[in-house]
Amino acid sequence: MSDRRADRLAALTSALTANHLDGLLLSGLPNIRYLTGFSGSNALALVTPKQVYLITDFRYKTQLADEVGHHASVVIEPQSLWTGLWRVMGSLPQMDVAGFESAHLLHRDFQRLLDAGARWQWRPTTDLVETLRERKDAGELALITAAAAVADRALGRTLPQLAAGMTELQIAGILEKMLRDEGSEGFPFPSIVASGARAALPHARSSRKVVERGELLLLDFGAEVGGYCADITRTVVIGTATGEQREIYAIVREANELASSGVRAGMRGRDADAIARSYIERQGYGEAFGHSLGHGLGLEVHEAPRLARTADAPLVPNSVVTIEPGIYRAGWGGIRIEDDVHLGPSGPEMLTHFTRELAEVA
Amino acid sequence: MSDRRADRLAALTSALTANHLDGLLLSGLPNIRYLTGFSGSNALALVTPKQVYLITDFRYKTQLADEVGHHASVVIEPQSLWTGLWRVMGSLPQMDVAGFESAHLLHRDFQRLLDAGARWQWRPTTDLVETLRERKDAGELALITAAAAVADRALGRTLPQLAAGMTELQIAGILEKMLRDEGSEGFPFPSIVASGARAALPHARSSRKVVERGELLLLDFGAEVGGYCADITRTVVIGTATGEQREIYAIVREANELASSGVRAGMRGRDADAIARSYIERQGYGEAFGHSLGHGLGLEVHEAPRLARTADAPLVPNSVVTIEPGIYRAGWGGIRIEDDVHLGPSGPEMLTHFTRELAEVA
Repeated sequence: MSDRRADRLAALTSALTANHLDGLLLSGLPNIRYLTGFSGSNALALVTPKQVYLITDFRYKTQLADEVGHHASVVIEPQSLWTGLWRVMGSLPQMDVAGFESAHLLHRDFQRLLDAGARWQWRPTTDLVETLRERKDAGELALITAAAAVADRALGRTLPQLAAGMTELQIAGILEKMLRDEGSEGFPFPSIVASGARAALPHARSSRKVVERGELLLLDFGAEVGGYCADITRTVVIGTATGEQREIYAIVREANELASSGVRAGMRGRDADAIARSYIERQGYGEAFGHSLGHGLGLEVHEAPRLARTADAPLVPNSVVTIEPGIYRAGWGGIRIEDDVHLGPSGPEMLTHFTRELAEVA
Repeated sequence: MSDRRADRLAALTSALTANHLDGLLLSGLPNIRYLTGFSGSNALALVTPKQVYLITDFRYKTQLADEVGHHASVVIEPQSLWTGLWRVMGSLPQMDVAGFESAHLLHRDFQRLLDAGARWQWRPTTDLVETLRERKDAGELALITAAAAVADRALGRTLPQLAAGMTELQIAGILEKMLRDEGSEGFPFPSIVASGARAALPHARSSRKVVERGELLLLDFGAEVGGYCADITRTVVIGTATGEQREIYAIVREANELASSGVRAGMRGRDADAIARSYIERQGYGEAFGHSLGHGLGLEVHEAPRLARTADAPLVPNSVVTIEPGIYRAGWGGIRIEDDVHLGPSGPEMLTHFTRELAEVA
């Protein structure tokens, strides 16, 4: 990890120079973790061309040695993180113009910059660290791959336990227990277990609804290893699939496979999205695929890049993205099949390996 | 629910008038849920003395009728929520000065108010809705009580399943499955399952560490029903407790019982904190109780009020708070016992009922 964190800092330092900044205040926790290794939930970081300062509270004292080591100068601040920040900044003679993260600073805290921090000039910045995070290094890729394997195994152990008559919440419980047993450190987002007509809701959570024989059951969930996320969706049928369920499933599966095998670094996000979308449109279900094809994956379960109709940016090499086409029909249900794909130098590499054959369970 | 949401709106309208505001932009999702019932993850709301406007995207169309009904005028915005907001505000002739939530608006979005929203005057506000949320009504209290009962039952079903040799993650999996089986809609925060020396870390998460015979095992977790949270901690011994474990456990238990039975609406937060803290100090462990006594509980698992050394505000009637004293010793472990208490008109009412007897499990 060490050398990679040094590389990240060097890249960020170049960005500071290009932006005429003497320093950069980081308030986004995933960005702080990326640069320092710190995984706690209360911290600020100040990056200068010479040093990274991490300001946190006493609760994290024990974990700092393990996580951060010599990659940052650590300040444990008994009162407010901001008091610690002013002290650090006041000790730096070459600090005049400082950037802050416009997308990760609350107005309340921005006001602190203008009041207690008024002796420095503040400039809003966007995506300086996020841009670096888009391109995964070997260590990051290994962690996402491990998380994807946890998700695959948990799903494999869950499906044989399912039966008509269970509630969605009970099924979520079984799935989440298997995720823990397989070593998931957390749940990157609330598990979606949605059955029958509820599978048509693009942002269902799990509910008390009882799953009935013949219904579609959509499972969309994450796993976390070393802070890195995987995100997978499979849709199964409880009992025996109807002809219509099979037919629509086959379309979603083909859209997933076309996009998973066709996506490339260098392609614009919108062109990746179009691989799946144009196929679904040709099958007559264009209106029923109401969301975008996918998103980046890393320390956060939604990060850059976007694979969407409005995404003009080219996908960068070594990014990791989800491919998740779906078809939803109000009242009938929905089918989504989601995999995680690494955009490697020689083409896309699947990180999730769970079968895309339609499963009829229970 | 209907009449209560109308009461909340009336109270907020009074606050608008007192603050000379024609309207209030809400960007904090729990505050939006409190006023409109909407439980989704992407919305803005505008409150005026006459009406509440809820602006969200198409993904939530289906759930809006159930959740929001006639309590807000709903705007489904295909592009950006902000476009919807400008359109709504532009249609209101008496809109001139508008408040926004300083603690729930990112700088990036504050910049939108100054740019696209420049035809209105914007005033930062703090805690206008949070203050209302502190005092729970009967419906809210019923939901927190239900969540506390889910937590109690899940813990009761978990302890008999535990054994030395399991990892903390496996134990978290068992506990979380029981929470789901008992009907928890989600996990308000990442479950803490911390054993041995790790129980001394005030913000441990669950890890791959194997739990050994003779160790303390601390379980701190939440449950959610109807959007409302419970939060409970018990510490058990795997195997047979030592004399020292029993002795320190008894001190924490007595501190919990003194504070749970002694806390009252009208008392300052610092005086509630002092009930437990002064007892622990008299036993010689003052330095080992390094956090505050508790916090409010409701739509969020941490909300007003605070029960802490620096909390001068009086506790309001019908608030719900946690009482969670602890003693932590580096290398040895830690003991925390946490309950949820309603500050009723005739005194404190426990909402969590799990025994505080020291359990020796496995």
